[in-house]
Amino acid sequence: MIESAFAYDSVEMSPDGREVIILDQSLLPAQEKFLHITTSEQVFFAITLQKVRGPIAVGLAAVFGLAVSLNRFKAYNLKQLETEFIRIKRSLYINRPNTATLLSLLDRMEACFFETKSKIEPKEKKSIEVIKNALIAEARSIKMEDVRKCQSISEKGAELIKRGDTILTFGNAGHLATARYGTSLGPIYVAQQKGFSPKVYTCETRPMLYGSRLMAYELNQSGIDVTLICDDMAALVLSQKKIDMVFVGADRIARNGDVLNVPGTSALAIIAKHYNVPFYVLATSDTLSEDAATGDDFQIDESPAYEMTEMYFNKPVGPKGIKVYNPSYDITDSSLVTAYITDKGIIKSEDL
Amino acid sequence: MIESAFAYDSVEMSPDGREVIILDQSLLPAQEKFLHITTSEQVFFAITLQKVRGPIAVGLAAVFGLAVSLNRFKAYNLKQLETEFIRIKRSLYINRPNTATLLSLLDRMEACFFETKSKIEPKEKKSIEVIKNALIAEARSIKMEDVRKCQSISEKGAELIKRGDTILTFGNAGHLATARYGTSLGPIYVAQQKGFSPKVYTCETRPMLYGSRLMAYELNQSGIDVTLICDDMAALVLSQKKIDMVFVGADRIARNGDVLNVPGTSALAIIAKHYNVPFYVLATSDTLSEDAATGDDFQIDESPAYEMTEMYFNKPVGPKGIKVYNPSYDITDSSLVTAYITDKGIIKSEDL
Repeated sequence: MIESAFAYDSVEMSPDGREVIILDQSLLPAQEKFLHITTSEQVFFAITLQKVRGPIAVGLAAVFGLAVSLNRFKAYNLKQLETEFIRIKRSLYINRPNTATLLSLLDRMEACFFETKSKIEPKEKKSIEVIKNALIAEARSIKMEDVRKCQSISEKGAELIKRGDTILTFGNAGHLATARYGTSLGPIYVAQQKGFSPKVYTCETRPMLYGSRLMAYELNQSGIDVTLICDDMAALVLSQKKIDMVFVGADRIARNGDVLNVPGTSALAIIAKHYNVPFYVLATSDTLSEDAATGDDFQIDESPAYEMTEMYFNKPVGPKGIKVYNPSYDITDSSLVTAYITDKGIIKSEDL
Repeated sequence: MIESAFAYDSVEMSPDGREVIILDQSLLPAQEKFLHITTSEQVFFAITLQKVRGPIAVGLAAVFGLAVSLNRFKAYNLKQLETEFIRIKRSLYINRPNTATLLSLLDRMEACFFETKSKIEPKEKKSIEVIKNALIAEARSIKMEDVRKCQSISEKGAELIKRGDTILTFGNAGHLATARYGTSLGPIYVAQQKGFSPKVYTCETRPMLYGSRLMAYELNQSGIDVTLICDDMAALVLSQKKIDMVFVGADRIARNGDVLNVPGTSALAIIAKHYNVPFYVLATSDTLSEDAATGDDFQIDESPAYEMTEMYFNKPVGPKGIKVYNPSYDITDSSLVTAYITDKGIIKSEDL
């Protein structure tokens, strides 16, 4: 059994169910600031402004936000409570290509609401409290299920790592983006605990610099030997035979194994294949999307241009008004993936 | 015959041979500032601080700097002039993996110095002026030779471009980095003049952002339809069949065709090959290095870590003290190159 290397989780709910506490990832690594969130509107902005990111962490922020907002609502009867629940749920129903997990978790919270309601006597004095508490408990269960899934991925993935191995990583699917252990970084933490001293090269992952700002930050904090490179340097490092395996996360995985993830994942997969380095995708089983036969069924939307031309810079890095293509994802062909490490087991690409 | 799309060259010498005038590339695209340089020390810093970059532009800055510094030196006799010449030349002899052109041009200026000296009567009153003027003329000849080479590459490369084609580019080997026309961008300017309306996707080229700061800037200024992407998005754009060909420059080319260039060139070559998109290297014939049999003979040095973690950012993008690997170049295997476009002709990879 591994233990988390971190003193806190990136998304938590206070013990009294009255606050969601989120480490503001948009300020890292300059500043470690925790947001104490009490309304669903604040959760909505925390997600859309990427103060919390990664499908698992985003899903947890949403269910905690739903439970906390409802818990703080003063309802005089069940009808009022139900109206407010529907309003909150709708305000958090963020429909983007990678929010399948968030949507299904909100639906699960709704099922919990109505199931609890159906079991209680409407006139009962405590009925409002009962429903509020049921939702808080459900949100906690969801988190603990995610923690166990990440733990399982971490332990399975760690079996791939030999003493002294060096892993190349991209994006961030670590502690900050998930429930406690991480998916793509989890096995590295386990290997570290085993005393295997894994080394990591991490790509900065433009445009939002998840790699340099978040992944390098959390790996460094946990004492892992990590070296930062620009995304375009991965080919050189792979050619120098410095890398034993590549680990990436996934936003969604199609039935044929094609992977939707941050842009650059597919580039890295092509380069890893060119240099015969194993390429592993680590993700929870919810990431597998029954409704997508192949990667072509995933929609690739665009993020704001300022992410590339301004956000992390103090002077313009592109000419004023330059046209920008800033896709939010790319799709990695399943033929480039060595295996998928999920909480339900390791699936080899050829067994799909 | 093409004309330059630009009103000025990025590196010029004033008509009186008393100033080198350099557009400060380190401030682009925020600010267009011209440096009026009068000493070899200023040229040294302009090169090492990347105010001027690209092997051709750097070579021209050095020979102009040498000619101007010597021209401004008050020598009372030929001996003094020679001592000063040697001192200046030494101060500009910057020996880095990609400065082969600079070194050979400085040697050529030295040959000019001694050849001119050998032909004049030492006691002649005007001998000092004769040598100074010979060096100014030699520097101008070097520039015009480079201009003609770039022009030749531009015209040959343009034959590859059909009406409406889209070209993906990386690094910057355009107007700013060369003599007037550019190497990798030159053919695009020619195609534009022919009325072919070429479209360009340009990679930002981390860490120094030559692509977004310089290449997108000069393409945009010359009215080309240019779209900026992050380096890690090139695979997606190639997979979408948006790109007809890839154009890159080269710092040096080994005898077997392996290419030394900014990091990321090799990644792009691997990805282009994966998607069957032609990958062209455009460079002057001086770039061919007789002393390197293969890419393994090129030395890859490292640039400062702050280029990645700080230089263009107003807040830290990596955790404090993070270990960084910041190679200055990478090597692209000749098997990935479709053809080399040089002033001496188009060389197919298989003909090497």
